[in-house]
Amino acid sequence: MPLINVWLRKGTTPEYRKAISDGIHKAMMDVLKTPEDDYFQVTGELDAENMIFDPNYFGVPRSEKMVFIRFSFNARPAAVKQRLFEATADNLVASPGIRREDIGMSILELAPENWWAYARTVDPDTGTDSRMSA
Amino acid sequence: MPLINVWLRKGTTPEYRKAISDGIHKAMMDVLKTPEDDYFQVTGELDAENMIFDPNYFGVPRSEKMVFIRFSFNARPAAVKQRLFEATADNLVASPGIRREDIGMSILELAPENWWAYARTVDPDTGTDSRMSA
Amino acid sequence: MPLINVWLRKGTTPEYRKAISDGIHKAMMDVLKTPEDDYFQVTGELDAENMIFDPNYFGVPRSEKMVFIRFSFNARPAAVKQRLFEATADNLVASPGIRREDIGMSILELAPENWWAYARTVDPDTGTDSRMSA
Repeated sequence: MPLINVWLRKGTTPEYRKAISDGIHKAMMDVLKTPEDDYFQVTGELDAENMIFDPNYFGVPRSEKMVFIRFSFNARPAAVKQRLFEATADNLVASPGIRREDIGMSILELAPENWWAYARTVDPDTGTDSRMSA
Repeated sequence: MPLINVWLRKGTTPEYRKAISDGIHKAMMDVLKTPEDDYFQVTGELDAENMIFDPNYFGVPRSEKMVFIRFSFNARPAAVKQRLFEATADNLVASPGIRREDIGMSILELAPENWWAYARTVDPDTGTDSRMSA
Repeated sequence: MPLINVWLRKGTTPEYRKAISDGIHKAMMDVLKTPEDDYFQVTGELDAENMIFDPNYFGVPRSEKMVFIRFSFNARPAAVKQRLFEATADNLVASPGIRREDIGMSILELAPENWWAYARTVDPDTGTDSRMSA
């Protein structure tokens, strides 16, 4: 049961933000193998003065299209997280067409026991989410 | 010194959101034994397009009343966290009357040393918060 | 590659919020030795009813100028985090002139592998960020 926070500047269309959501969602399904319905996302639209970043971070120009993505999910191996980052960037470059340089991502890893949703339970043997039996 | 983030869709009354706050606060006092004055909460009200979730997660219908709650506090045993989740859900079902299916919760656990507020100190023996002596 | 979240009530000027940003940024450079361009911040401006705190936490009056700051960065020793808290508070007291009592801070520590930005890589020997060689 992941939770995703996205922050970007005001001025984009709902379609643009949906493409970001879809790209993140697809990367999570492809790389993390999360189920299609296991998707919770919150997007914050910010005035320029409330979203601050250096326009030349690491010597690479960053534009006002910058998007910050914060994933929260159960722990994964480093190589899997790296693949998720690259797959997400690939998807957002393809649609809605964000420059790779304008994406920043980070991950919070939570214990499976630190999530709660009605009808969700944690398999005591595998630690994975499963549907509570009726 | 916990910090709580709540996200829900725009269109609720201040009284509705206060009932959510009060329900979370009461659950924390009852289960975590946090002091009454130790309560910091931020609520984000979102356009529908900026709060995304599957309307049928785990085969259970989820409505537009969905609320995401993220707790941040010092580490607790799994059983205590589970009781907090259930107590919070109980309270929000009672008031403002949210369906249990429309609640999603998660917890970030921080080291006591990772919090700062004026006049707060961490007891070096117990790791618990205490009022700095004058 | 840190990420900072700031929350405060609506009604401040852009200059006031910039002073907060600058004060946090300077504290991070001074104490954590983060590079000047390594700075990503998101500020949330909230209606009073959506930013909740006890006006008398720990017996100390807290005003409507309260600001919550959440740092996210790679792990640091406790003493360094403590110095960061104090340096940040010092800076915000100096400008924009926030009462020390009206500042609340917390830190999320992430593994270096949990961050991604184009052109950033993690040095396999030291675990620190570095510019990807061309």
